Amino acid sequence: MNNIKLTLQYDGANFAGWQIQKNAVTIQQKITDAIKVLLKEDVNVIGSGRTDSGVHAFGQVANFKTESALDIYRFQHSLNSILPQDISIKDISLVDENFHSRFDAKKRSYIYILSFKKSPFFNNYSWLYHNKINIEGLNKLSNILIGTHDFTSFSKKNTEVDNKNCIIYSAKWRVSGDLVIFMIEANRYLHGMVRTTVGTLLKLEKEKNSKKLLIEILDQKNREVAGEAAPAKGLFLYKVKY
Amino acid sequence: MNNIKLTLQYDGANFAGWQIQKNAVTIQQKITDAIKVLLKEDVNVIGSGRTDSGVHAFGQVANFKTESALDIYRFQHSLNSILPQDISIKDISLVDENFHSRFDAKKRSYIYILSFKKSPFFNNYSWLYHNKINIEGLNKLSNILIGTHDFTSFSKKNTEVDNKNCIIYSAKWRVSGDLVIFMIEANRYLHGMVRTTVGTLLKLEKEKNSKKLLIEILDQKNREVAGEAAPAKGLFLYKVKY
Repeated sequence: MNNIKLTLQYDGANFAGWQIQKNAVTIQQKITDAIKVLLKEDVNVIGSGRTDSGVHAFGQVANFKTESALDIYRFQHSLNSILPQDISIKDISLVDENFHSRFDAKKRSYIYILSFKKSPFFNNYSWLYHNKINIEGLNKLSNILIGTHDFTSFSKKNTEVDNKNCIIYSAKWRVSGDLVIFMIEANRYLHGMVRTTVGTLLKLEKEKNSKKLLIEILDQKNREVAGEAAPAKGLFLYKVKY
Repeated sequence: MNNIKLTLQYDGANFAGWQIQKNAVTIQQKITDAIKVLLKEDVNVIGSGRTDSGVHAFGQVANFKTESALDIYRFQHSLNSILPQDISIKDISLVDENFHSRFDAKKRSYIYILSFKKSPFFNNYSWLYHNKINIEGLNKLSNILIGTHDFTSFSKKNTEVDNKNCIIYSAKWRVSGDLVIFMIEANRYLHGMVRTTVGTLLKLEKEKNSKKLLIEILDQKNREVAGEAAPAKGLFLYKVKY
């Protein structure tokens, strides 16, 4: 049994997210279908985590097991030829039989891109944001998130997990030309968490006592008290570390 | 009379190039139309130079004269609201009455992007190139272009100019991640010149005596002897200096 690890990029605009679902076009479905065309085999493509509808990936990781003997680089090339232009297999490797892209992931990072100016090249990949942004203020505020916190207030209500604690390793904002980039690294994320974190930090930063307010929002464990989620098109699953 | 200078970005994919022409959607047309909506005035939008169908711009420059008194930043904002998502006005300024975006341009630079790997984010903005690239070899070869040369061999035959001499200030290749970027700066360009230069340099670099061959191609002043033009989607008008 061969266990194949894939590192993927995708433009999420035309997909209803990562996970296979009925009556919707998803990335997991497209990859599963493409593998079936090549290997004549139904494989279970496991992603490191779901991404929502419209969310992009620079470095999603997935794995699948197959009975077929593969020349993996030739297979990568064939898979890229079959997959639509908005999905690409960036890297491929043969891994240990026990490797599991979701359970074995230690850290996952996301970036969120805001643009100050209308740009034909970033319109589909950023949130056009006309308000002033205080990077220093946002970074001070974001430092509060570092460590282990219950993110109930930042996750969609229907999230079916027992434990809502996440360990945040870093959360930083920086300016790059006409863009502002927020990067967050954590052990895991709840549903909708990064976008709600971005929306809430941007909203709170303008207020007095923003640190106190952020701590209160975390403590209340209630989605109603956090800010609006930032639009999906600015969000990228950046990297998964094992 | 106010003379307004615009710095523009556009994704050229959906346009038949910069210049107004019958029965085609062009960037110059879109801008002229948008200005008319706002100022109720027919203005002559002068670009620093034409870009071909499918070619993009990071920093095209244009100017137009108007009788209207303008709050230029408000005007920029309105213009960006009216223009389609693939055209944006990056900067605007009120300039001297004599400023002419084409005649006054001293240096123009283009970049050409090649990608080694399929990428959902660069597919529309680069040429997917599977052959090996020797950057050092390309740079040595490109050095021959520096200075003043007759570029007849690198321009479309229908180019209606008397003098086909161009001064090349720099022509360099570099690697950036999975991309290769060629940047060229010159006083002017003939029609199709950058794409033919890219295609020819890539073709010649693999040959023995490539320098000698390149000099011969320049000397022959015949489009037939140069290589094929690289695809338009990898080309960006990068910057215009005055």
